[in-house]
Amino acid sequence: MNLRHDAEIIIQASIQAVLPDEAVSRALENKKFDSGKLFLVAAGKAAWQMAYTTEKILSSRLDGGIVISKYNHIKSPIPKLTCIEAGHPIPDENSFRATEAAIQLVRNLTAKDTVIFLLSGGASALFEKPLIPSEELADITNQLLSCGADIVEMNTLRKRLSAVKGGKFARLCEPAHIYCIVLSDIIGDPLDMIASGPVYPDSSTCEQALRIAHKYNLKLSAKAWDLLKTETIKNITNVETIITGNVHSLCEAAAISCASLGYRPIILSDQLTCEAREAGSFLASIARTHRYSNESLAFIVGGETVVHITGKGKGGRNQELALAAAPFLSGIPNAVIFSVGSDGTDGPTEAAGGYVDSKTCETLKQNGLNVYDILKENNSYHALKLTNGLIITGATGTNVNDFSVLLIRKL
Amino acid sequence: MNLRHDAEIIIQASIQAVLPDEAVSRALENKKFDSGKLFLVAAGKAAWQMAYTTEKILSSRLDGGIVISKYNHIKSPIPKLTCIEAGHPIPDENSFRATEAAIQLVRNLTAKDTVIFLLSGGASALFEKPLIPSEELADITNQLLSCGADIVEMNTLRKRLSAVKGGKFARLCEPAHIYCIVLSDIIGDPLDMIASGPVYPDSSTCEQALRIAHKYNLKLSAKAWDLLKTETIKNITNVETIITGNVHSLCEAAAISCASLGYRPIILSDQLTCEAREAGSFLASIARTHRYSNESLAFIVGGETVVHITGKGKGGRNQELALAAAPFLSGIPNAVIFSVGSDGTDGPTEAAGGYVDSKTCETLKQNGLNVYDILKENNSYHALKLTNGLIITGATGTNVNDFSVLLIRKL
Repeated sequence: MNLRHDAEIIIQASIQAVLPDEAVSRALENKKFDSGKLFLVAAGKAAWQMAYTTEKILSSRLDGGIVISKYNHIKSPIPKLTCIEAGHPIPDENSFRATEAAIQLVRNLTAKDTVIFLLSGGASALFEKPLIPSEELADITNQLLSCGADIVEMNTLRKRLSAVKGGKFARLCEPAHIYCIVLSDIIGDPLDMIASGPVYPDSSTCEQALRIAHKYNLKLSAKAWDLLKTETIKNITNVETIITGNVHSLCEAAAISCASLGYRPIILSDQLTCEAREAGSFLASIARTHRYSNESLAFIVGGETVVHITGKGKGGRNQELALAAAPFLSGIPNAVIFSVGSDGTDGPTEAAGGYVDSKTCETLKQNGLNVYDILKENNSYHALKLTNGLIITGATGTNVNDFSVLLIRKL
Repeated sequence: MNLRHDAEIIIQASIQAVLPDEAVSRALENKKFDSGKLFLVAAGKAAWQMAYTTEKILSSRLDGGIVISKYNHIKSPIPKLTCIEAGHPIPDENSFRATEAAIQLVRNLTAKDTVIFLLSGGASALFEKPLIPSEELADITNQLLSCGADIVEMNTLRKRLSAVKGGKFARLCEPAHIYCIVLSDIIGDPLDMIASGPVYPDSSTCEQALRIAHKYNLKLSAKAWDLLKTETIKNITNVETIITGNVHSLCEAAAISCASLGYRPIILSDQLTCEAREAGSFLASIARTHRYSNESLAFIVGGETVVHITGKGKGGRNQELALAAAPFLSGIPNAVIFSVGSDGTDGPTEAAGGYVDSKTCETLKQNGLNVYDILKENNSYHALKLTNGLIITGATGTNVNDFSVLLIRKL
């Protein structure tokens, strides 16, 4: 019974199944484009991988394009395409420069031309031209991150403070046609929320934007308040969108991998959005009840949990979920819990997530540490490093949110 | 499809199955007692029901006894027994007076005598003789309740501040034999924790007690600090204990009832201890994923969630769990979530728990309310009253913790 080994197999197989290559290939198969020019704009953590695959398929048909991804996410140059790395989760000058280049690229196109727009998670920060000073945008983003706002709330604000979000990039491409291929990182795949919907009619309202600003007591300039009160684009006709991968596919892939290892897989949810540490506690309570099960079980949840930061430690939501589960697994040698971000980065760490088992708390105790103090400091990374509980995958090239698994081996 | 009706049936059937009557009968069946006197001491929310059944069975064999329960929990006098109502969750003068009466009752017994000791949830407060002034005990209990301490933490402290807890009542009964019948309200049934273990060797340590006091920054007198540093009784030989009902039985009963209504029951856990509202969010995320299931499903969790009080509203952990689930159920007409305390009282309210469905948030919105504001105020009771979502059972006479159910009807 090597549960750590099982976990590594499940993690690798699940992420493999949602890598952009095959998904993008499917979306381009038999796709006919108009006779005009064909440009590519890719933004997000998976942008390089999606663009690389697209260029391979379309090759000489492609006239040029811009690829914008996070630092260390551009693996190599791609013929005809300009690849730019930029700031995430807080946009920086490179984000603005790259986005401006994309805007220039799509200026003066005709109705015969097409823009292939490849979107993946992280594009909200990477594809950005703010209508307020960038320092204020950074400050607002920071305020939102530290008060635990979810991605839907963040994007509701960001699309109003931006020249490209909330459908505005679609207007800039007009009269050209846009073929948008999406790798979704938002629960439930709301197309106007993924990357703050640069080519999709905005369903959020000024009223909602203002409510969020009040809910979190945001400090905003008069200009920003004015923008929150300005309604976004509700009607777009030059865009066709296709979703090629999401957290549901990730959970399904995890289930198949668990089954191949002899576990009966149970996907509880692919829309988990609660507090990371409480999700860990919930999963672990399942372990305590089913520890003597007469079959091996794998409980799977996908989604995007949240962390309310109270300390100054280092960690991420997946690491925190796993660590919070650890105290309940003490004394249960046949159960483990792991949680992983499909993009390979969990919070501001180089780990993709965390893994805990019956020994985790014991090891921490031997080092004079206890889980509750660590969680209060949001210091899951250092604790899991100590217990050999970090999951390291490196940047995966995809981003369809997180998944967490409780494995129970029949004794 | 009347899901509210299904919920009511499941709640009634589940609680019925864990009422003390049958459980106590089983525990007394064929039980032989020594030739000496036979006294009864009962404490807890289920004390009256347990004592009533015991007196019926033993009748003339019984020599007398004391029954201590919460206010409004004594249904009628019982022959030969003195029934006293007292304060809960904060002990009051009646608790101390009743406990002192029990101590007097068991003084000067012989090795031929037996004390039947009937324990149920709530006895920690009801069966108490403090070693510090009662005002300070009340203050400490208040401090612990308001900082979200769990019952294990509370009892670790209380047994050190008490003349009867942590095995001390067993010492007071010596050399008489004690037959202890337990209806368990603590996750995992740790016998030294139920009612703070008046007749059970204490497994908690001074070190743990002091850690808890520091963790919550409790304000304590010098006398109380001294007591926390005094070790409790670790060796008891005059007690036989039997557990007759617990949260596991409650979940099993819920599963049977769900199945009889056509749902496939899935008991996820009987040991849930996470934040109430996050448990609600977790359960609701299961609803969102399984809403189109091709069979009717019932996901069941049992346990005791916690609430960290941030507001001044009225509610309880079950009502808060249910209310927190409501936003996720909007637009899902075939799913409901309810959560119920088996004792019939949830927090300081007359409701046993809460029920939410796809209409809950809409109704609140029509009244100018939203769930997040209500939760911030811990005001679930008033919100659920408005949505017709209060579960009212009245005092049930039992107490084996809470259960929560997500019902999904096949469309």
